[in-house]
Amino acid sequence: MAKIRPISGFPEWLPEQRLVEQQVLDTIRRGFELFGYAPIETRSVEPLDQLLKKGETDKEIYVLKRLQAEGDADADDASLGLHFDLTVPFARYVGQHRGHLRFPLRRYQIQKSWRGERPQEGRYREFYQADADVIAEGELPIHFDAEMVTVLHQVMASLPFPPVTIQVNNRKVLEGFYRALGIEEMQPVLRAADKLDKIGEDGVRALLADELGLGAAAAERCLELARIRGTGPEVVERVHALGARHPLLDQGLDELAAVMAAVAELPDGAVVADLHIARGLDYYTGTVYEGVMLGHESLGSVCSGGRYDDLATTGSGPPLPGVGVSIGVTRILGRLFGQELLTASRSTPSCVMVALVDDASRGESEAVVRALRRRGIACEVHHAAQKFGKQIRSAERKGIPYVWFTRGETTGGHEVRDITSGEQVAADPESWQPARELAGVRLVQKEE
Amino acid sequence: MAKIRPISGFPEWLPEQRLVEQQVLDTIRRGFELFGYAPIETRSVEPLDQLLKKGETDKEIYVLKRLQAEGDADADDASLGLHFDLTVPFARYVGQHRGHLRFPLRRYQIQKSWRGERPQEGRYREFYQADADVIAEGELPIHFDAEMVTVLHQVMASLPFPPVTIQVNNRKVLEGFYRALGIEEMQPVLRAADKLDKIGEDGVRALLADELGLGAAAAERCLELARIRGTGPEVVERVHALGARHPLLDQGLDELAAVMAAVAELPDGAVVADLHIARGLDYYTGTVYEGVMLGHESLGSVCSGGRYDDLATTGSGPPLPGVGVSIGVTRILGRLFGQELLTASRSTPSCVMVALVDDASRGESEAVVRALRRRGIACEVHHAAQKFGKQIRSAERKGIPYVWFTRGETTGGHEVRDITSGEQVAADPESWQPARELAGVRLVQKEE
Repeated sequence: MAKIRPISGFPEWLPEQRLVEQQVLDTIRRGFELFGYAPIETRSVEPLDQLLKKGETDKEIYVLKRLQAEGDADADDASLGLHFDLTVPFARYVGQHRGHLRFPLRRYQIQKSWRGERPQEGRYREFYQADADVIAEGELPIHFDAEMVTVLHQVMASLPFPPVTIQVNNRKVLEGFYRALGIEEMQPVLRAADKLDKIGEDGVRALLADELGLGAAAAERCLELARIRGTGPEVVERVHALGARHPLLDQGLDELAAVMAAVAELPDGAVVADLHIARGLDYYTGTVYEGVMLGHESLGSVCSGGRYDDLATTGSGPPLPGVGVSIGVTRILGRLFGQELLTASRSTPSCVMVALVDDASRGESEAVVRALRRRGIACEVHHAAQKFGKQIRSAERKGIPYVWFTRGETTGGHEVRDITSGEQVAADPESWQPARELAGVRLVQKEE
Repeated sequence: MAKIRPISGFPEWLPEQRLVEQQVLDTIRRGFELFGYAPIETRSVEPLDQLLKKGETDKEIYVLKRLQAEGDADADDASLGLHFDLTVPFARYVGQHRGHLRFPLRRYQIQKSWRGERPQEGRYREFYQADADVIAEGELPIHFDAEMVTVLHQVMASLPFPPVTIQVNNRKVLEGFYRALGIEEMQPVLRAADKLDKIGEDGVRALLADELGLGAAAAERCLELARIRGTGPEVVERVHALGARHPLLDQGLDELAAVMAAVAELPDGAVVADLHIARGLDYYTGTVYEGVMLGHESLGSVCSGGRYDDLATTGSGPPLPGVGVSIGVTRILGRLFGQELLTASRSTPSCVMVALVDDASRGESEAVVRALRRRGIACEVHHAAQKFGKQIRSAERKGIPYVWFTRGETTGGHEVRDITSGEQVAADPESWQPARELAGVRLVQKEE
């Protein structure tokens, strides 16, 4: 028989890790909902032309083929691919269902995406993203760009993760600045600038000069722009000090200043304007975001997003501009699990293991779990009538905090044992309650 | 621009429907967890040989190809397919991770599956299933087969669905009975029997006689067996009365009787032994389950499952027998949404819409949502400073129950309006609470 082995890039967690992941996803969901974001899910597939419309991701797409599709005249799934993000499907969804939606539409979407990239740390072929976006019909005011920062900060701060700094920039600033330098083709320069964290200043300088034919002086100006970072109006002044002038640059700086002013109340270190942020994807047209996690900068961005004024817009009706953010849940958890920084207090939802005296008295034990479950206490009967010591150890290994005995040693009746303290007391299945901190599965964060 | 259109078999819900689906999935999850089932998720893909190992589903599998994989020596995803159920992946997961798991392992798994079947009502190409299974190392006692019925009944009864009857049978009964009739090859007969609901007695009779070469008398006996249905010991007597004798038949009847006895306390109509239930999949070896929804029998089974003694077992170590059930969430919701039998009280999580007086006073409105959110109340600021009547109607259309005014008509200060009653009262953002029944999104079931 072939050995069963993991598939590179397709992570799987153990139950105690999935319990963590669920609580993380629940917290994200609650956070988005507090801001009035409504949930949607899109199908996992999109027509290939939709996926290839924007972005330099064509090489990463997984295409579907039915195993025995030959000779089957079914055009429907002739050219379907798995989505590589949640923004492109959402934009398509809004265009398709616009008659049934209310605008501006605040939506969140927590789903897996797939990319056929070569796996490495922080880069998976199947991964969870948690996105929140707003799409408006007609106009989408700039205060929504600021709302996304606030939502993202509040949600990240509510999670059991190291602190995250959100870096904000605006594509119009970059594009206006580049135009002022006489650069015509934007995408190659934007992509070069976006590689700064990966290949360093020399690498970007080489890319700009050698491959894109930019003069040394112009390349140097691009790098000077990329070094600007700050939280207040001094950012705008420093850009102006570089001397470039272009209407698009002014518009971008106004938007950036407006976003930074609107989020000024967030805690120090939560947000910074950082002019080296570009984002690789083609569909962004204004504000762009990228978040890095303290102590895990090597992981790259753990959340990101931006404004896309044209992605959802269809041939008919008013435009559908959007802005949104995305949290790289699997990227973050992969790191925290890998370094054993985050785990769950137990590997099962069960709070109580009811011991089994013998097979004949299984009904007694079953009556206890029925009573406990009626009051919302998760529990199970031990699977076999082993020695009590063995049953207790079995609960302990799963991290279950209580063992219940239907015929206790002291009273002869119902008794419950706190495994940690070893204390065992008489208890009534109809009224007993676990300690509040032991009722549910808790997350355990380890010190780095 | 190409028209954006739905893809047949890949359903998508509107936000108000996704709010329903989320509550349904939450309820299922809570139900499984009460019984001590731990969550896992498996990757969406399996190696093709794993998917083809069991079951007659080869024609339905979606295979993945990377769009630009030519010449790329990456064997890892050379032969991956999307899983068509959650049982095969779970069995593989247990074999792969057994060193890190505690047995018997109770797990639940709520994920999408994919099948390239021709779409029709109740049959999708992408769909949610919610599975609960137990896999043991060595032996899995029959009381787990009964536990699955109890779990499934409790969970289905907690959902906003019409009542479900769980039909129970045992493959050993069928196989022993067929062997007693001299039938050697089991799978074709089992599959023929499984089609009874779809093609009727005449259809099955024809299949058995013509295609499988069964004599008319033997075919008739198979149909007589399939007609047996009941809840008590009379079921076993009626099978015996048919005269067939085989050790496997006796064993199957003992198991079926044990399961039925163990669930006798469930309400009338919840469970019935029904000897026409066969289940199409090859991997079942004992107990099988199939649930039908009252008033929606035409939909076929809405939940199903069974025991599989060999599926998870690997070449080394003790066997890994399992038993489990699966709820066809998308099949059920597709029907209930299609007939408008189930919807949500609103299309957004927001409980409060804070009106916007003018752009200059946006900060006042933002302060209200911050205060409400700190106390867990989902809310949003109206996107534009329109006339109040328009802002109220905008909230109304989304089903948001309250509109908040920072400068109320009567008091000049904070006031909140209950949209349904029209009542408007002074309110403090730091202490106001919505009516309990209006705080969250509620499910609304319509009479059939």
